[in-house]
Amino acid sequence: MNLSDIKRFLIGKPFPTSMDVHERLDKFRALAVFASDPISSNAYATEAIMSVLIVIGSGALRLTLPIGLAVTGLVLLVIFSYIQTIMHYPQGGGAYIVAKDNLGTFPSLVAGAALLTDYVLTVSVSVSAGVRAVTSAFPESLPYRVEMAIAAILLVTWINLRGARESGTIFAIPTYAFVSGVWVVLLIGLARYFGLFGAPPLQPVQEVVPPVTSVAGFAYIWLLLRAFAGGCTALTGIEAISDGVQAFKPPESKNAAQTMVAMGFMAMSLFVGITFLSSHLQLIPHEGESILSQMTRRITQGGILYYWVQFFTAMILFLAANTGYQDFPRLSSFLARDNYLPRWLQNRGDRLVFSSGIITLAAVSSIIVIVFRANEIAMLPLYAIGVMLGFSLSQAGMFRLMGRIAHLKPGETLQTQVTEVHFEPNAKWKRLLNATGAAVTFLVFVILLSTKFLEGAWIVAMLIPLLVVMFFSIHRHYDRVAAALSTRGLTIADLTTVADVVIVPIADVHRGTLLALQYAKRLSNDVRAVTITTSEEMKEHLLRRWNRFPEITGDIKLIALDYDFRDILNPLVAYIEKVNNEEFPDQLTTVVIPAFIPEDRVANILHNQTARRLRELLRQSKDIVIIDIPIHIDSYLTTDAAAAPPDVASEAPPVPTEIPSEAPPLAPETDDHQVENGTEDQQ
Amino acid sequence: MNLSDIKRFLIGKPFPTSMDVHERLDKFRALAVFASDPISSNAYATEAIMSVLIVIGSGALRLTLPIGLAVTGLVLLVIFSYIQTIMHYPQGGGAYIVAKDNLGTFPSLVAGAALLTDYVLTVSVSVSAGVRAVTSAFPESLPYRVEMAIAAILLVTWINLRGARESGTIFAIPTYAFVSGVWVVLLIGLARYFGLFGAPPLQPVQEVVPPVTSVAGFAYIWLLLRAFAGGCTALTGIEAISDGVQAFKPPESKNAAQTMVAMGFMAMSLFVGITFLSSHLQLIPHEGESILSQMTRRITQGGILYYWVQFFTAMILFLAANTGYQDFPRLSSFLARDNYLPRWLQNRGDRLVFSSGIITLAAVSSIIVIVFRANEIAMLPLYAIGVMLGFSLSQAGMFRLMGRIAHLKPGETLQTQVTEVHFEPNAKWKRLLNATGAAVTFLVFVILLSTKFLEGAWIVAMLIPLLVVMFFSIHRHYDRVAAALSTRGLTIADLTTVADVVIVPIADVHRGTLLALQYAKRLSNDVRAVTITTSEEMKEHLLRRWNRFPEITGDIKLIALDYDFRDILNPLVAYIEKVNNEEFPDQLTTVVIPAFIPEDRVANILHNQTARRLRELLRQSKDIVIIDIPIHIDSYLTTDAAAAPPDVASEAPPVPTEIPSEAPPLAPETDDHQVENGTEDQQ
Repeated sequence: MNLSDIKRFLIGKPFPTSMDVHERLDKFRALAVFASDPISSNAYATEAIMSVLIVIGSGALRLTLPIGLAVTGLVLLVIFSYIQTIMHYPQGGGAYIVAKDNLGTFPSLVAGAALLTDYVLTVSVSVSAGVRAVTSAFPESLPYRVEMAIAAILLVTWINLRGARESGTIFAIPTYAFVSGVWVVLLIGLARYFGLFGAPPLQPVQEVVPPVTSVAGFAYIWLLLRAFAGGCTALTGIEAISDGVQAFKPPESKNAAQTMVAMGFMAMSLFVGITFLSSHLQLIPHEGESILSQMTRRITQGGILYYWVQFFTAMILFLAANTGYQDFPRLSSFLARDNYLPRWLQNRGDRLVFSSGIITLAAVSSIIVIVFRANEIAMLPLYAIGVMLGFSLSQAGMFRLMGRIAHLKPGETLQTQVTEVHFEPNAKWKRLLNATGAAVTFLVFVILLSTKFLEGAWIVAMLIPLLVVMFFSIHRHYDRVAAALSTRGLTIADLTTVADVVIVPIADVHRGTLLALQYAKRLSNDVRAVTITTSEEMKEHLLRRWNRFPEITGDIKLIALDYDFRDILNPLVAYIEKVNNEEFPDQLTTVVIPAFIPEDRVANILHNQTARRLRELLRQSKDIVIIDIPIHIDSYLTTDAAAAPPDVASEAPPVPTEIPSEAPPLAPETDDHQVENGTEDQQ
Repeated sequence: MNLSDIKRFLIGKPFPTSMDVHERLDKFRALAVFASDPISSNAYATEAIMSVLIVIGSGALRLTLPIGLAVTGLVLLVIFSYIQTIMHYPQGGGAYIVAKDNLGTFPSLVAGAALLTDYVLTVSVSVSAGVRAVTSAFPESLPYRVEMAIAAILLVTWINLRGARESGTIFAIPTYAFVSGVWVVLLIGLARYFGLFGAPPLQPVQEVVPPVTSVAGFAYIWLLLRAFAGGCTALTGIEAISDGVQAFKPPESKNAAQTMVAMGFMAMSLFVGITFLSSHLQLIPHEGESILSQMTRRITQGGILYYWVQFFTAMILFLAANTGYQDFPRLSSFLARDNYLPRWLQNRGDRLVFSSGIITLAAVSSIIVIVFRANEIAMLPLYAIGVMLGFSLSQAGMFRLMGRIAHLKPGETLQTQVTEVHFEPNAKWKRLLNATGAAVTFLVFVILLSTKFLEGAWIVAMLIPLLVVMFFSIHRHYDRVAAALSTRGLTIADLTTVADVVIVPIADVHRGTLLALQYAKRLSNDVRAVTITTSEEMKEHLLRRWNRFPEITGDIKLIALDYDFRDILNPLVAYIEKVNNEEFPDQLTTVVIPAFIPEDRVANILHNQTARRLRELLRQSKDIVIIDIPIHIDSYLTTDAAAAPPDVASEAPPVPTEIPSEAPPLAPETDDHQVENGTEDQQ
C-alpha cells in the first residue's frame, strides 16, 4: 500500500471537475454547516453580557434583556444587510468582494486580512473550547489538551478534505441536536414561568446581593458598551453564508437567503429565550457553572435533557471550528484569484474542495493552538475583532451600492465590476439600515479593540496591516511575472537566441559521460568537455580513457582545469559563467549534465549529489539551459547485463590547461576500465 | 554577511590540497590529541577494579595491585602489538586494515563496525562524563545537561573542522596539565609513603570492615574476571595512533611508534601509581567520592594541587571525546574508500579534514546523548566492547602476518595487499605475544559482553551485525553502479540513440513557452507541444494565442488533451511515457520544460512548482532527457523593460484531441495578451 493508496483511502476517489455543480449543499446540510458557529455562541453570549453587568451590581442584571434585545436588533440588521448582499452578489459576496466592488482595493484587502485572521482564530478558539469541555469532564486528560486540540483539528481537516456534502452530513447531527435540545428547555421554562398547561411554577433564584460598586457617568456607559460588545460575540459566523453562496445548490442566492433567515431565526430564538429566562430567573454568572448550564439545570432539574444539552453544547463548540473550514479556503481562493495570495490557494483537490486552503488553515490554526497551549481564554481578546471590521466594511460597501441603486429609475440596470443590479423600490430605506449597521459594527469594533488592546488585541491590530502589505507585495510579484512573460508586441527577434556551444562537465569517461557527449554532439559542433583535475594522476587516467573512444571524443574539446582545492563546483561554474557571459553574451548557453538515478531513493545518500548541486547553482545564472541526461543504473544492468564490475564515474571538473584531444595515449592500454575507487563522485 | 562568509569565519580560509603534507601533527601535539582518551581512563580504571573486588570483601582489595599489574601487562602487550602494526603498516593500520590484509573481508568489516560503534560511544560517554563533572560542581545546571552535552559536542566539532594542527594545540594544555598534576601527586605520595626526603609519613586509612560475603569457587573467579575486565577500560583509545599514522609528520611510522611508547609510559605510570597508592592507603571505593579524588585529597591535604587535579580530570574527560573525532572520520574514510560506506565520507573539507565524517559523528553521538539524556552511566554497558573486539581481530591479523614473516629468510621480502614486509629475527616470539594478546582481548570482549549483556551490551551485539550487513549492501550498490557504467567492450552502438522527437508541455503561450518551443525546434522536426485542457474556454484561449505566432508555432504539432480532473501532471506524464515507450522504444525522448526562476527563493512559494514536480516524475522514467529552459523573471524585466503588465503563463497539459495547428483562429484578435488570472500555474 503506497502513499497514493493511503490518500485514496483517506480522501475517497477523485471527483471529475464536471461534477462540480453536484458537490453542493442542500439547505438542510448548509444550515448545519454554516450555523454551528453563530448558534454555538449561545453557549456564552448571554453570559458575556451578564458578566460585565455584574461589575456594576446585581441590580444592573435587569439590563441584560434590553442589551440582549439590542444585540438581537443588531443581528437582524446584519442579517438583513447580508440577505441584500446575497441577492446582489449571487457569485458569493463576503466583505472582501463587496468592499472591492464598492469601496476599492485597499478597503477590500483590509476586510480580507481581518476576516482571514478571524477565521483562523475561529478554528483555534472553538477547538480549544471544545477540548476544555472534555477536560472539564475528565480532568486527568488536562496534560494532553494541546495534543487533543491538534487531533481535533486533524479530524476536522480530514472531514473537510473529503468534500462538502459529507461534512454537511457529519455536522448536521450536533447542530440540530443542540438547537432542538435548547428549544425544548426554553419551551418548558417558559411554560413553567408563565404557569401554562399546568406546568409546575418556576420561581426566581433567591437573590444573592453582590457588593455594590459605585459606577457612574462615563464609566457606567463604558461598561454598558462593553456588555453590549460582549453580547456581540453572537454575531460571529453570520458572514459565512454570504461568502459561500456558491456552495449552495442552485438557485444559489435564493437558497442561501432562506438559509440565512432560518439561521437568524434559530440563533435569535435561542439567544432571546436564554436571555429572557436567565434574567427573569435572576441567575448570577459565576465561574463554576455557565449561565446556560444553570438555566438548563433549574428548568429540567438535571434530568436526561440537561445532559443532552450539555453534551451537544460541547459538540457544537467543537464543530464551530468547521465554519473556519468553510470560510478560510473560500476567501483565500478569492484573494488568490486576484493575485493577493499564492495562486495555488485556488487549486481544488481530488474532492473539489480547496485542499491547499484547508491544509494552510489547519497548519496556521495548529500553530496558534500550540503557541497558546490550547488556552482559548488567552485567545479570546484576539477574537471577533476581525469579524466586526469585516461587517463594517461590508455594510459600508452595501451602503455605497444602495446609494447607486437609489439613483436608478425603474427598469434601469447598473453593471458593477462583479455583479449587475436593478432598480429597487425601497433602496433608500435599505441604505439607511446599511449605514446604521456599518456605524454600529464599527463602533463595536472600536470597543472590542480598545477594551482588549493590552490583553492581546494589539496582535490583531499589527497583523492586519502586515497582511495587507503582504497582499500587495504578492500582487506586485505576479504583476512582474506577467510583465516579463507578456507577448504584447513580442516578435521572434525578441526571443533570446541559442549560442552554438555545449558544455559537458565530466569527472571521468564512462558510459554515462559518453552518452552525454554523444547527445551534446547533436546540438552543436562546439562541444566542450570540462573536467576539474585535482592531481596529475587523475588527469592522466582521464586522458587515457578519453582517447579510447575517438569516435565520440574525437571532435570534442577536452578542457582540464587544475584546481588545488576540493570545492570543484566553484571553478566549474566560474568557467561556465565565463563562457556564457564573455564568449556568448545575451545568448543561451547549453550545459549537459549526466546524472545518476539510483534504483531507489535511499541509494541517493550514497552519491555526492554533485549533479543536483551543479544544477541548482547554474539555475541561478541567467541564460543557461540545463540538459539532464539520466543514467538509470538498473536499466543498463538489465538491458545488456554488463557482467564485470568496476568502472565508475560522474560529472566533475579550473587554472585552465587545454589538453589537445588528439594527444597520443600517455600510456599503453592498461586495465583501467576499472576506475580507481571513488572517481565516480568523490568530488 | 552571507552563509559562505559565516563559514569562512568559523572554519578559517581553505587550505590547498597540495598543502596536505604540512597539515600534520608533531609528536608533542599528537600525544595530546591521541592520549586524552587512554590517559583520561585513569580517572576511573583503578576504581573499576576496586568496586568489583569490594563485593568479595574489603580483604580482597589487596588483589587490586596484582589485577592492576595484569591490566598493565595486557596494555603493554597491546602497545607492543600496535607498535609492530605501525612499523608494518606505515600507511595507517587500524584493526580494519590489519584484519582486511590478513584475515579477509568479513573479519575486517566486523572490526570496522565494532570500532565505529565504539568511537561514537567515546564521544557520547566522554562528553556526558565531562558534563557530570560540571553538574557535580554546579547542581543548579543539572536540568541543562543534555543542552550542555550538545554544546560540548558542537564545540569539539567546530575545533576539529578547523583542522588537526589547531585542535592539537587546543588539546595539549589539559592533557599535559592532568598528567603533570597527577605525577606530582604520585611523587609526593610515594615520598611520604616510603618516608623519603623527610616528607611527613602517610598512614593507611583506618580500616573500615565491610560486610564479608562468602564468595567461593566459580563465582570468585568470575568476580576476579569482572574486576580485570573493569580495569581494561584503561585500554580504550590505544588503537587510535595505529589508525592515524598518516596524521603524523614524516617519518610517520617512527614518530607514531615513539608517541605510542610515550603514551604507554604516561598512561601506565599513572595507572600503576594510582593503583599502588590507592591499595596501600587502603582506600575504599564509595559513591560519594572517586578513588582518584580520595587519594589526591589524602596526599595533598586538599590544597591547590587537589583542585588542579580535579579541574583537569574534568577537562581531560571532556576532551577525550576528541579521540572519537580523530578515529571515526579516518576509519569511515577507509571504509568509504573500499566502498563499504558512502563515498562522500572520503571528502576532505576546506581545512583538509574529513568534514563529512566529523559532521556524521557529531550527529550520531548527539542523537545518543539525547536518547540517553546525557547519562553516561546508562551508556557504559555499551562501551569498550567494540574496542576489545577490534583489538582481538587486529592482533589475530598480526599473528597471521607474523606467521608469514617467520617463514621468510634473511633478505626476503613479502608483498601483501597493503604493505611490504621483510625478514625479522624475532618474528616467532612476536607472534606468540600477538597470539596471547588476541586471546586475552577476546576473552575480555566475551566477559564484557556477557556480564553487561542485559544492561545494554545487547544493543552493540545487534548493531555490529547490522552494520556489517549495511556495509555489504552499500558495496553491492557501488558494484552495480560500476558495472552499469563500465566501458569494457563498449562501442558506440551500445549507447542509447536519441529519438527524433521533442515534447514541450505548455499551459499557455507566453514568452517563456515560445522560447522553449524555439529551442525545441533546433533539436527535431517533430516538436509536439502538449497541453492539458480542463475547459473549453481554456482551449479556445490557448488556440487564439497559439495562432498569433505562426513563425514559431507553424510547424509544431499542438496536442490538447482534455482532462476532467485536477491532477494534470498524471495525464501529461502518461502521454510522454506512451511516446517514449511505444513510439520510440529504447531511444532517448527529449522533453523541454520551461521553468520559472523567481527573483528570490521566497517567491518560489508563490508558484505551483509544476515544473519541478514534472521533472521529478519524469526522472523516474527511463530514457527521458529533460531540458530546463530557465525563465528568469527579472532578466526579462530589466533587459527590455516590458512595460505593461498582465500576461501570465506556465507549463501544464489528457483524452487526446489533436488540434491541427493550421486551424483558423477561432476568434477575432482580442486583447488576450492579457491572460485570465492564474493560467500561469493554476494547475
